[in-house]
Amino acid sequence: MSDVTNVLKEYSKIVVKAIEENLGTIEPQELQDASMYLTKAGGKMLRPALTLIVADAVGGNKEDAINTAAAFELVHTFSLIHDDIMDDDDMRRGKPSVHKVWDEPTAILAGDTLFSKAFQMIILSKNNGANPANVADALATLADACVKICEGQASDMGFEGNFDVKEEEYSNMIFKKTGALIAAATKAGAIMGGANQEVVDAMYDYGRLIGQAFQIQDDYLDVVSDEESLGKPIGSDIAKGKMTLMVVKALAEAEGSDKERLVEILKDSNSTQDDVDEAIDLFNKYGSIEYAHNLALANVAEAKEVLEILDDSESKQVLVELADFVLERKS
Amino acid sequence: MSDVTNVLKEYSKIVVKAIEENLGTIEPQELQDASMYLTKAGGKMLRPALTLIVADAVGGNKEDAINTAAAFELVHTFSLIHDDIMDDDDMRRGKPSVHKVWDEPTAILAGDTLFSKAFQMIILSKNNGANPANVADALATLADACVKICEGQASDMGFEGNFDVKEEEYSNMIFKKTGALIAAATKAGAIMGGANQEVVDAMYDYGRLIGQAFQIQDDYLDVVSDEESLGKPIGSDIAKGKMTLMVVKALAEAEGSDKERLVEILKDSNSTQDDVDEAIDLFNKYGSIEYAHNLALANVAEAKEVLEILDDSESKQVLVELADFVLERKS
Repeated sequence: MSDVTNVLKEYSKIVVKAIEENLGTIEPQELQDASMYLTKAGGKMLRPALTLIVADAVGGNKEDAINTAAAFELVHTFSLIHDDIMDDDDMRRGKPSVHKVWDEPTAILAGDTLFSKAFQMIILSKNNGANPANVADALATLADACVKICEGQASDMGFEGNFDVKEEEYSNMIFKKTGALIAAATKAGAIMGGANQEVVDAMYDYGRLIGQAFQIQDDYLDVVSDEESLGKPIGSDIAKGKMTLMVVKALAEAEGSDKERLVEILKDSNSTQDDVDEAIDLFNKYGSIEYAHNLALANVAEAKEVLEILDDSESKQVLVELADFVLERKS
Repeated sequence: MSDVTNVLKEYSKIVVKAIEENLGTIEPQELQDASMYLTKAGGKMLRPALTLIVADAVGGNKEDAINTAAAFELVHTFSLIHDDIMDDDDMRRGKPSVHKVWDEPTAILAGDTLFSKAFQMIILSKNNGANPANVADALATLADACVKICEGQASDMGFEGNFDVKEEEYSNMIFKKTGALIAAATKAGAIMGGANQEVVDAMYDYGRLIGQAFQIQDDYLDVVSDEESLGKPIGSDIAKGKMTLMVVKALAEAEGSDKERLVEILKDSNSTQDDVDEAIDLFNKYGSIEYAHNLALANVAEAKEVLEILDDSESKQVLVELADFVLERKS
């Protein structure tokens, strides 16, 4: 797995450089600082790395895809900044969130600026020699993902306190909120790499599948990992009443007093560790942890099947390993 | 002038229809309602009308420019929604602002959604038969304006309470905050109409000039109009301590006790009508009202000169009349 980590690090440097160059012209300085803050705080840079790896795996020129890759990181960062305001989250990437370091108006603007710069960066690749038709398709892919992110966040806020959400509604929401941008990042990599429509569609599916697996694994680790690996108490999502696939599934399967008790624990803003453990027991009783884990496994397997459309290459191998990596991480 | 008003109304209908069709797919419903709210509340639709009139005036096909025109209205609306949150303004277009009808998170998201949809709408015109190279240039024009809007709003917030702002800094800020989008709207009209680079640049200048004249006239009417025409007390900008060209100019010219008194009135959140009248007297003493008015007149004259690059047509005549209209309106 160290290969994957190294590849991510290498691509991360290229993307950070492109972002710093492009955002370095923003004025006034305060807006530039607020816009650059989360990128400097360090992120996994998973989305832009995926764009570049896919561009290479389909036989394209990675250089043409750098700006597009960076754009996906900018949109991801924009959504983190605005989400943190909306959800009133004080911390991000181990540091105070943008609206805490500055204020809400500056954070709203920093997000808007990143959003604008994302589109501008993709457009600039046209001047740098990329195929104009591909640039237009990459822009369409990004814009589509942006609409979905907003819709997903709105649905998520709408679901708050609603414990009757169906699995399909939940999956649709979580795809829009987090999966759509990952799928768009891999699709845009294929587009900028000059792939044909069949490969472009396959790469969208690959991104969608590992995106969903990534999300499920995040939620799964919260209940099955240990406090040391996780860096936070087990079941903290349950304590916060967060909606996850496991919650949705358990609530769909449970009846009578079990269901009532689970809703009670999720609603309680002062849940104890005993309450959380009780909820995890109920997840187990109704098979929702296994269900989620199996779905993540199936997604990863399907993602790897999808990759068979590609000719063998180092980058294809990285994509295979990335799919496994999603489930092998411990935090 | 009734001609201009009728033309604006006619184009407004076309643009509203395009916006309603495109935004009608947004879900959940609440996000769609919040996103559509200000468009339904009615606006002058000046920016999209300019795009369409210019597209026609350069000899292009208006149909190709409808989505691009709509995109400029969406970005304008996005910036109003986010500005109202940042400035904590409760009212917009005679109705409670979006974050008052819903809440701040929904308003942030509605703005983000309009922003995403703006880019998506321009991209869609490619599928509707518009020239792909023009579509890419229109997108670049919009993205550039979006970055400027953010920078302008950030500068404006940064100027708050700073009464040493130079005229050039102020003009740069106000161009980015309001003029850049109008200039981009006229430029994009020329692009989508298939104009050559010289005409495209001229149309950008036209938009920039009438945009600046429009802004100055807004501020000018606040001090020279009457309460009945204006629908609000004379000098309400002064009472609010708003930075305008007249303020910047008067502060640059005034010295000693006059300057101190003007700053005092602007800083005072409880200014009386006598205080406001005193400030207007100081504007007059230092010639700042005349200075602003003359600049607006010069802008309109230059805007009309710029139009001479176009062949005669009905739409060219509308652009000429629109330039005059900017200074003839009374509120």
